[in-house]
Amino acid sequence: MTSPSPPFRVGLVQTRAVADPADNLEKVVAQTREAAARGAQVVCHQELFRSPYFCQREDPALFDLAESVPGPTTEVLGRLARELGVVIVTSLFERRGAGVYHNTAAVLDADGELRGLYRKMHIPDDPLYYEKYYFTPGDLGFRVFDTRFARIGTLVCWDQWYPEAARLTAMLGAELLVYPTAIGWHPSEREAYGTAQHDAWETMQRAHAIANGLHVVAVNRTGHEGDAGSGIQFWGASFVADPSGVVVARAPHDEEAILVVECDPKKSETVRRHWPFFRDRRIDAYEGITKRWGEP
Amino acid sequence: MTSPSPPFRVGLVQTRAVADPADNLEKVVAQTREAAARGAQVVCHQELFRSPYFCQREDPALFDLAESVPGPTTEVLGRLARELGVVIVTSLFERRGAGVYHNTAAVLDADGELRGLYRKMHIPDDPLYYEKYYFTPGDLGFRVFDTRFARIGTLVCWDQWYPEAARLTAMLGAELLVYPTAIGWHPSEREAYGTAQHDAWETMQRAHAIANGLHVVAVNRTGHEGDAGSGIQFWGASFVADPSGVVVARAPHDEEAILVVECDPKKSETVRRHWPFFRDRRIDAYEGITKRWGEP
Repeated sequence: MTSPSPPFRVGLVQTRAVADPADNLEKVVAQTREAAARGAQVVCHQELFRSPYFCQREDPALFDLAESVPGPTTEVLGRLARELGVVIVTSLFERRGAGVYHNTAAVLDADGELRGLYRKMHIPDDPLYYEKYYFTPGDLGFRVFDTRFARIGTLVCWDQWYPEAARLTAMLGAELLVYPTAIGWHPSEREAYGTAQHDAWETMQRAHAIANGLHVVAVNRTGHEGDAGSGIQFWGASFVADPSGVVVARAPHDEEAILVVECDPKKSETVRRHWPFFRDRRIDAYEGITKRWGEP
Repeated sequence: MTSPSPPFRVGLVQTRAVADPADNLEKVVAQTREAAARGAQVVCHQELFRSPYFCQREDPALFDLAESVPGPTTEVLGRLARELGVVIVTSLFERRGAGVYHNTAAVLDADGELRGLYRKMHIPDDPLYYEKYYFTPGDLGFRVFDTRFARIGTLVCWDQWYPEAARLTAMLGAELLVYPTAIGWHPSEREAYGTAQHDAWETMQRAHAIANGLHVVAVNRTGHEGDAGSGIQFWGASFVADPSGVVVARAPHDEEAILVVECDPKKSETVRRHWPFFRDRRIDAYEGITKRWGEP
């Protein structure tokens, strides 16, 4: 492991998706420019930003939204990254082959090169989040990418509920863990459960920061998609947690937003010296983690 | 796995330790009676309740505080459990043999029988928490105990920072996860870091409740131990989190307290249906968890 990277500024782009993928790309390009203008060096996009969250229904025609990676979107974003001199962490509906599609994070380095892909490992399937229909589970495992500004680990949305995923990515030396996300409320549940649901989501990811002593970024979409009173009210609230789990910036629930936050990887060194959790892991006793369930 | 246990009431006994182990036992017995009188059916004690937190210094004479388990304390508490008809989850400095000592949780069932032991697996060592000097790491692995009121998983203090420990115990079917604890502030750090430290601690354990969909209990000691201005200011704040990670009761920082809270294991069933994290674990990709560190 090399020395910690110098401090860098991460930018989060939280948007409201519209129907046309071309319009969403145009908006996210503009907001990436704005984030860079505000000093961001690593710009992170929300999950599947090119379209509305199509997984609300199962429709074979929607596979037409998928594209090759590398492909048209990474080409545009690679040129943008090189022009602005920023790293871009983005999220794409990847067509890998006929009948094999992934929910994929791509890391474009500040020279415009595609540094690599992460394919979402944990695939949800719940009412209005029919992802198992669309996405083949990832086969690249957990990954980090050495970029101009930091070693970045990528995970996607549902992965955020899995301490195993955060741990394994941290153990690869990630200095920053980025979660492109699309999560929201069923409008009928917002009043009764909305606060607790959002709080559980943020708490879980803050815990990844604490357990692993690193910066965590979640970039979520905002806005309502679907029929009034049903569909999904995406809850925004993109945030950055520092290696102590403190939320240092949080976007609003119901508005588009750009956050720019300084991250200092040296904080990981300090935090892990004071709370040295990695030192004491009982790796002789964790074999059961690779099982489906336990036997008392 | 059997059906969920019916709802039960858990009691938390948060105390200030005094010098004499006999006095501490007397106090905790009285507070256990009080908790039972208030309706508690599973009464949980703080870590190493029989003495001040002796790990603040390394002194071979302090091994005299250790005792056999089963032994004098479990005998007293077993009689008490049978008399009151409650389960007791307690914490002891165990002398297993000459030179082999453990930080041990014991579960006494409501019939007074010792249901079993858990020996702390993750042992810390930090300024004023010199536990590696006193405690041999546990060799019983992660455990659950079937008691009259619930299947109870036990972990101890430093274990609370390890998602692996919570996960493995949950996978054994734990309905309640209990952490006897002794954690506090260095008085000189309380003003600057105290809030963030306490919040990280609570957040981490709430995340275990969320990731695993079960009730979590932490029982911490309170009071200052050591010279004025140094030593440890134990932060109390014992709490119960429900399977959504919501803190349903929390004791004060600086006072003794008894909490009695109803837990309903059916909530785990409901929560895990709505957020079915166990369904989607990528057990084919977790092998690295059993390694010390990763290779990008």
